[in-house]
Amino acid sequence: MQFSPAIASLIRALKILPGVGQKSAQRMAFQLLERQRDGATGLAEALAHAVAVVGRCDTCRTLTEGTRCHICSDDSRAASGLLCIVESPADVIAVEQTSQFNGQYFVLLGHLSPLDGIGPREIGLDLLEARFGAGEINEVILATNPTVEGDATAHYIGDLARKHGVNASRIAHGVPVGGELEYVDHTTLSHAFNGRKSF
Amino acid sequence: MQFSPAIASLIRALKILPGVGQKSAQRMAFQLLERQRDGATGLAEALAHAVAVVGRCDTCRTLTEGTRCHICSDDSRAASGLLCIVESPADVIAVEQTSQFNGQYFVLLGHLSPLDGIGPREIGLDLLEARFGAGEINEVILATNPTVEGDATAHYIGDLARKHGVNASRIAHGVPVGGELEYVDHTTLSHAFNGRKSF
Ligand SMILES: [Zn+2]
Ligand SMILES: [Zn+2]
Repeated sequence: MQFSPAIASLIRALKILPGVGQKSAQRMAFQLLERQRDGATGLAEALAHAVAVVGRCDTCRTLTEGTRCHICSDDSRAASGLLCIVESPADVIAVEQTSQFNGQYFVLLGHLSPLDGIGPREIGLDLLEARFGAGEINEVILATNPTVEGDATAHYIGDLARKHGVNASRIAHGVPVGGELEYVDHTTLSHAFNGRKSF
Repeated sequence: MQFSPAIASLIRALKILPGVGQKSAQRMAFQLLERQRDGATGLAEALAHAVAVVGRCDTCRTLTEGTRCHICSDDSRAASGLLCIVESPADVIAVEQTSQFNGQYFVLLGHLSPLDGIGPREIGLDLLEARFGAGEINEVILATNPTVEGDATAHYIGDLARKHGVNASRIAHGVPVGGELEYVDHTTLSHAFNGRKSF
């Protein structure tokens, strides 16, 4: 089937969305153009705006506007002395939804992967080490994904923490091995936090 | 969880997409902002462009750029004298993918629904009647959905066609090829029985 060029471009562009294949992209394009033109315009604007203004928090590296996210700006969270290390901003959301954690986060935006050229610097460990050195963190909770790379990254950061006299713990098993934090249900994730062990 | 305003707006905007709820929209927003900023910008542009340039074909009412779609512009299809009536542009795609039909289409962009104020004019039947009157159509194939409204609409158009001396046929409804009788709904099975053919 030959679509007109603008429709074909839209279908192609929609396919960059996670989980959207050719068939879903077609359905989305038609629905937007048939019945939701205002919504489509709103989505175009929201995308352009977000790309323009959303950057990374200077302190924790999560996605946010401005230079500091609302969690890093919260003094009571800073006072906790707890720092949770996660791989992605989506993991921050997942942990926040448990309502079990009232500390701060540090977002690696990835994990160590030497073969792909991703070393300590690429995941912000220089910044993290500076925070350890500043002496305001008592405990670091390693909540990287329970994968080979996530475990290796957790070990590396655990060593870094101990070097600076900071306690390190790893969230407990309960998160299915090989799974991704983002997709784990709240209860499991709560258990994993409560059952964390010295690392 | 509190998202920064631009991220919250993007998540809200993504939820207009069919089949996309809060969780998928979050995942999409993060993936776009973390790893696919160029793709996100491309999607914003494709959306804005499509909304700006895609309108309806003057002849068949499907979604297209310019005043006439590529199917209506194809002389060999016009020469067939066959006109397939469908409810939506997506149905055109579905029929085209069978590679069985080489005529033209007429897209109702809906079906008759008097209670919702959708009468013959709203689904373009004045335009369709003008085409019947022009004498270039020999047969109209009614491919509206096998629903109460789709059937009523097919009946209405069938009467209109006969009034202009145009043959009308309705696509067959029955058990899907490869489907199992046991899992087919009663209405479909009734259709299949009523539409049985000598074997
Ligand atoms: Zn932050
Ligand atoms: Zn057309």
